[in-house]
Amino acid sequence: MNPIRVGLLGLGTAGGGTYDILLRNREEIARRAGREIHVVAAAVRNLAKARAKVGDAIRLGTDPQAVVDASDVDIVVELMGGIEPARALILSAIAQGKHVVTANKALLALHGNEIFAAAQARGVMVAFEAAVAGGIPIIKALREGLTANRIQWIAGIINGTSNFILTRMREAGASFADALAEAQRLGYAEADPTFDIEGIDAAHKLTIMAAIAFGVPMHFDQAYTEGISRLTADDIRYAEQFGYRIKLLGICRRVSDGFELRVHPTLIPEQQLIANVHGVMNAVLVRGDAVGSTLYYGAGAGAEPTGSSVVADLVDVTRMQTADPDHRVPHLAFQANRLSDLPVLAISAVHTSYYLRLRAYDRPGVLADITRILADQGISIEAMLQREPAQGEDQVDVIILTHRTVEAGMDRAITAIESLASMVGPVVRIRMEALAS
Amino acid sequence: MNPIRVGLLGLGTAGGGTYDILLRNREEIARRAGREIHVVAAAVRNLAKARAKVGDAIRLGTDPQAVVDASDVDIVVELMGGIEPARALILSAIAQGKHVVTANKALLALHGNEIFAAAQARGVMVAFEAAVAGGIPIIKALREGLTANRIQWIAGIINGTSNFILTRMREAGASFADALAEAQRLGYAEADPTFDIEGIDAAHKLTIMAAIAFGVPMHFDQAYTEGISRLTADDIRYAEQFGYRIKLLGICRRVSDGFELRVHPTLIPEQQLIANVHGVMNAVLVRGDAVGSTLYYGAGAGAEPTGSSVVADLVDVTRMQTADPDHRVPHLAFQANRLSDLPVLAISAVHTSYYLRLRAYDRPGVLADITRILADQGISIEAMLQREPAQGEDQVDVIILTHRTVEAGMDRAITAIESLASMVGPVVRIRMEALAS
Repeated sequence: MNPIRVGLLGLGTAGGGTYDILLRNREEIARRAGREIHVVAAAVRNLAKARAKVGDAIRLGTDPQAVVDASDVDIVVELMGGIEPARALILSAIAQGKHVVTANKALLALHGNEIFAAAQARGVMVAFEAAVAGGIPIIKALREGLTANRIQWIAGIINGTSNFILTRMREAGASFADALAEAQRLGYAEADPTFDIEGIDAAHKLTIMAAIAFGVPMHFDQAYTEGISRLTADDIRYAEQFGYRIKLLGICRRVSDGFELRVHPTLIPEQQLIANVHGVMNAVLVRGDAVGSTLYYGAGAGAEPTGSSVVADLVDVTRMQTADPDHRVPHLAFQANRLSDLPVLAISAVHTSYYLRLRAYDRPGVLADITRILADQGISIEAMLQREPAQGEDQVDVIILTHRTVEAGMDRAITAIESLASMVGPVVRIRMEALAS
Repeated sequence: MNPIRVGLLGLGTAGGGTYDILLRNREEIARRAGREIHVVAAAVRNLAKARAKVGDAIRLGTDPQAVVDASDVDIVVELMGGIEPARALILSAIAQGKHVVTANKALLALHGNEIFAAAQARGVMVAFEAAVAGGIPIIKALREGLTANRIQWIAGIINGTSNFILTRMREAGASFADALAEAQRLGYAEADPTFDIEGIDAAHKLTIMAAIAFGVPMHFDQAYTEGISRLTADDIRYAEQFGYRIKLLGICRRVSDGFELRVHPTLIPEQQLIANVHGVMNAVLVRGDAVGSTLYYGAGAGAEPTGSSVVADLVDVTRMQTADPDHRVPHLAFQANRLSDLPVLAISAVHTSYYLRLRAYDRPGVLADITRILADQGISIEAMLQREPAQGEDQVDVIILTHRTVEAGMDRAITAIESLASMVGPVVRIRMEALAS
């Protein structure tokens, strides 16, 4: 059979990894795919650098549209990132009846509905395994491996930068700022780390997983997103005293009247496997009604882990292109005409349990005031810890773990607690999940 | 589109779970698959019991061949287990051009080469996700998710019964016999537990994973298989003192002149995620050259976890049946005409590190004799522990951890150590794996 011919948009980290894998494992991949997969052209920013990497093996240029338009390109692989021109290039490839593979989570979370509708109408495939959790085949697991299940919830460590920072804060007792600086030194965090540390990147990936899990369109604009930049080493230490680790989790959960879609720091029991995922590694825990809990773990970023998922998509597309479009795996796991309008719950309607840290003057009656306020909101306390004041201090830290309650009630309770005369500064609130069922 | 019509061979644990899922999640599954999946007939042993479960919804009988032959059955699902008549029934379905889904690991490990050759020749699919690690979509991950990779090794906890027993021996300090009795009480172990505790079931599953990972035929007859029945609570405790857990692992590894295929108790570092997989849960750690290490975790048995994989296969087969056979996912991951004749290494040629436990009379020169014997075989010692003799005893336990060496050399060393006059009883030898790269 003739080779399938690929055009790469971008030859940076992900593009370079993809190119290297296709070259190194060419024979093994062909033994699997049934035909060879050849990169014939690439659009790059720096021609000299690209030429040094790939020699004369492929056609190089700086115009990505020329790669999309080339008559010898069967599949367009978009690894440039960013919204434009990536969006326009992918839509152009689709309009020309070309299949697309992309790792662009931001683009899919924001414009996936438009892109998948265009692909569906034109009968082409848009594959995106590399967009979520790097080398972990989580899209395939959700979309094909767990088709028997009504997915109940997903909880994922899907941002390696944040997980590295949290790991260092716990292991070394580092402050957030110091752990971030270390991550930047090691190349795990960008100079502007906002997307990673404020949960935006995780929310992109969560949006995509929720769509596939529940058969809903992309709802990135309704995701609740809270990052790790305000966490302190104290909170991590207190959590540990209660037997919990703090992880930045992306959580989506089906409830009776909609689904939750939220990214935030989360206390999870330390004996949970996912609590033991350290450094830049990613893991996704999926709860299905038939299979129970399954977990998927691996490298969430990097040249070859990302390339591993891109190439897997290329093999899939190569295999599936001869199938009639009605029998291919649907882009978003469910048939395009059978998506659901299940609404996203506002964060105020979410039920969860909480870790609260308050600082108060060491006076009689403080705990009575706090516990009365919680009781008024119907919030019951699971555990409480009051740290004795240090010599000469008159302020104490109070840590409270609550049972499950609705966020709106907790908001009211926190407002009331903060208005007590005995309180010093705001209440720190971190959500908790048992992830057990 | 018309429903796809399924005939079940067996309506026990796995068959009942499959039936329940297809009924309960019928709408969700159809939204994914693009058409409904109906069970139209089942062959059972006990008609009255089956009738009580399914009512009049499907045709019931005691003759599995009649289900295979029925003109209204498109896909045959074999969940009877055992070699015959399962083998003959599957071959009969294939000969009639019907697709097959099976959870029968023993049959595939022993007769997979014959079955897949017949399916290939007839252009039908034989799907078997449920044959390995229950509800974990590990076949899909290996066969489709990691197609970019040269798989370097796989290490799996793929027998829940053994893992439960080892977990109880560690947690409760129980003896093997007591932990086995507990597993039997809880329904995790059969009255005759041989297949599970002697590693045979794990070797079946490992054989299938190795075929998919390396593109080789089934080589069950050449698998090295050692179970957990001779492990003592002492060994588990000593291992823990060095920072290791003992797990029954199925390991296949590509080496320069072939591949290893072995099931045995294994010391692994306690900080490894897979060392923290407890109870009846399963997990498979896969090392690929591009993706690095990925891990897949979930329930390895049970009605609905197994049914989850069976139904995922049904959805896959439903989708792929219109694709031309050359473009389907190959049964064993690699194209049938491109399997490799990579040989299985004898266990004596395997390189690994070792835990040794010896009992010796507490005399001068014993350690010198032992370390000289190891040095003569080129085996270097990583750590050693000598437990002081208890009051009034004249025997001591000596624990030695070695660096990597070849098994044949270790065999010679053990023979020589056991012939020392100062030794009491045989040397206990447990293999160790770092699972790091």
